[in-house]
Amino acid sequence: MTPADLESTIAHMGAAARAASAAMAKASPAPKDGALRALAQWLRSEGAALAAANAEDIAAAQKAGLAGPMVDRLKLTPDAIETVAAGCEQIAAMPDPIGEITELRQRPSGIRVGRMRVPLGVFGMIYESRPNVTIEAASLAIKSGNACILRGGSEAIRSNRALWRLVQQALVDAGLPPDAVQLVQTTDRAAVGHLIASPDAVDVIIPRGGKSLIERISREAKVPVIKHLDGNCHVYVDAGADLEMALKLVDNAKTQKYSPCNAAESLLVHAAVAPAFLPRIGAVFAAKRVEMRVEPACKPLLRGIKGAEVVDATEDDWSQEYLAPIISIRIVDGLDTAIAHINRYGSHHTDAIVTNNHVHAMRFLREVDSASVMVNASTRFADGFEYGLGAEIGISTDKLHARGPVGLEGLTSLKWVVLGEGETRG
Amino acid sequence: MTPADLESTIAHMGAAARAASAAMAKASPAPKDGALRALAQWLRSEGAALAAANAEDIAAAQKAGLAGPMVDRLKLTPDAIETVAAGCEQIAAMPDPIGEITELRQRPSGIRVGRMRVPLGVFGMIYESRPNVTIEAASLAIKSGNACILRGGSEAIRSNRALWRLVQQALVDAGLPPDAVQLVQTTDRAAVGHLIASPDAVDVIIPRGGKSLIERISREAKVPVIKHLDGNCHVYVDAGADLEMALKLVDNAKTQKYSPCNAAESLLVHAAVAPAFLPRIGAVFAAKRVEMRVEPACKPLLRGIKGAEVVDATEDDWSQEYLAPIISIRIVDGLDTAIAHINRYGSHHTDAIVTNNHVHAMRFLREVDSASVMVNASTRFADGFEYGLGAEIGISTDKLHARGPVGLEGLTSLKWVVLGEGETRG
Repeated sequence: MTPADLESTIAHMGAAARAASAAMAKASPAPKDGALRALAQWLRSEGAALAAANAEDIAAAQKAGLAGPMVDRLKLTPDAIETVAAGCEQIAAMPDPIGEITELRQRPSGIRVGRMRVPLGVFGMIYESRPNVTIEAASLAIKSGNACILRGGSEAIRSNRALWRLVQQALVDAGLPPDAVQLVQTTDRAAVGHLIASPDAVDVIIPRGGKSLIERISREAKVPVIKHLDGNCHVYVDAGADLEMALKLVDNAKTQKYSPCNAAESLLVHAAVAPAFLPRIGAVFAAKRVEMRVEPACKPLLRGIKGAEVVDATEDDWSQEYLAPIISIRIVDGLDTAIAHINRYGSHHTDAIVTNNHVHAMRFLREVDSASVMVNASTRFADGFEYGLGAEIGISTDKLHARGPVGLEGLTSLKWVVLGEGETRG
Repeated sequence: MTPADLESTIAHMGAAARAASAAMAKASPAPKDGALRALAQWLRSEGAALAAANAEDIAAAQKAGLAGPMVDRLKLTPDAIETVAAGCEQIAAMPDPIGEITELRQRPSGIRVGRMRVPLGVFGMIYESRPNVTIEAASLAIKSGNACILRGGSEAIRSNRALWRLVQQALVDAGLPPDAVQLVQTTDRAAVGHLIASPDAVDVIIPRGGKSLIERISREAKVPVIKHLDGNCHVYVDAGADLEMALKLVDNAKTQKYSPCNAAESLLVHAAVAPAFLPRIGAVFAAKRVEMRVEPACKPLLRGIKGAEVVDATEDDWSQEYLAPIISIRIVDGLDTAIAHINRYGSHHTDAIVTNNHVHAMRFLREVDSASVMVNASTRFADGFEYGLGAEIGISTDKLHARGPVGLEGLTSLKWVVLGEGETRG
């Protein structure tokens, strides 16, 4: 495809998505939920075709020498297909967010003023590897009455095409416009550049992938981006905390899984409990081979623990998202220092305090400037499903519009409705 | 000031604002409301100093040959000062939006999950002429617990400095950090460029001014912008509408004031009522010397009206925001055509239907993709005060974050709070 052809292809997709979005915005719940249930059925009945397409992607990836974990992420197992099919049915069963009017109040002028929840219009989804995102994004678009343009990783293109054909079929089954969910068919990277520079066609871009992808998209986009940068999450163990609870929470936040963005990367311990707590958590980390990068004051307290890997933290460590069995550790002299450290070095994603002090709990909630702030809970709970959103299109580290886990609500906006009986302004 | 000095000045202001924003975010309602009431008092007691500073601005503007309406907008009359002083007291009397926790629900895991309203952090306000915006922005920043950096028009710099000094005094009176409200002291235009390119210092930019200023800022900004572009507002008179009501509403929407963004710029009339309605509204417009730019089908119905100025509309007219005694008029064959016309040519600001048909009213509310959609009310009501927001920092024509009139809520975000009792993720 020539550059001009590519640009015109993306422009055509955008115009078609814009037209389809008008039909989706006024669709009632029945066809939208019908399409989601039909999609679940197609996913289950077309397992063989999906497996064949996926096998081709995997063979190509192996031939190209992709690393093992990358190939794993490509895999569309029968279990993974059942998970996305069940997800479609769960989303179908959720209340429809669109058209709801809230806060309708009469004003002194006589007019009644309220707000109606409506779709954003068209979103662009840019993602890597995992083909299940194709179905997750399509199903959330359908439920929220939006159109979407999907751009998956080139290594998953055959799987994504096979999945997308089922979405097309389900939309047609339900009498909805198939252009409501489009897939960029070319693997040319310039397609992303056109997509993120088309404010007429796309209302918001949602990238899912590594930090460098998201930074590049944010820098070059001419449309708003719901962006998820890094998750440098902290747990602060306060003076007087229940140390059994702290042990359990810090262990879970760091070691239950190392790769998620809501895993803890940094531990702050109040000086009053450090002598009792650090040797115990140090032993847990040593047993799980978690490297500890610590400030000098921690070292005497971690001495002599069998198998412990303790190294000096550098200034850089306080800002690191390791996504690995590594944790930075610092002793602080109080709540103020802990909050200041988190607001300075953290990534405003998810941070937790372990405390029995009510005032400290409330101050931490209010003063830590992060999308999720927690008291006596594991940072690993920062997740759309755990929060009860029913589904998650992504996680936002921005403050405007959507913050933290983004579900259906993040794909909608509130417009003002005014009901009058002929009122004029004097 | 050298370019390097300017850049470092803005960077210093940004760092100071960021530091002050932490203190503002945790301030309780009492000092914030105290600062607002102190500001009202200072505005009333320092009238002479304000008048002197304003007189210098006006003399300079006249000497520079500024147009009459521009000079008028600069004027800080005793009435205008009383209005902003009373505004500060009204904002002080409003409920504090910060810290409220809503929707706190327990999840199957045991954790309780809710949302807390918090300040955005630091906003930058860029505005032209009217010095009263200095006080409006400062008072909304104080109430919402944000810090702000103000950049007014160079022609109002002496008035803005005098007003800003009173804000400083009021913050000090209340024990709040004076850096919470800063004023860019230089009139160098490059200061705006630095301000809108400082994501570390500024969370959002709110420009108020002409379309070209806002387009330029949006194009060059590296931080989110709450932008207000044009208001090409429509009134659609449906078949079967109460024509007395329609006459009153269209007249009010177009002629009550010509310059506001929520004034009507385009009239759509259903073919069934055009013969009865167009001659009557034509006579109203003729009497008020409102020029009518019409499609050919309207012309026979507007013939013979004394003083009527009727000209052929061009394709461009349908997209025009006149802000003047001019209106475009078109006859449509039904609701679908009216909605399609508004969504195509409108600016997604404010649009109204005059109808007695309930289904049409509901479809218009849902399907017209505008920040404010109205049934049987004048478009002129699209305003923060009329909607009950208590104050207005601006109007947004964006869909993300804030849409339509933006009050205190638009200066806040919702973060997630999680309250646990030691829950871990399995």
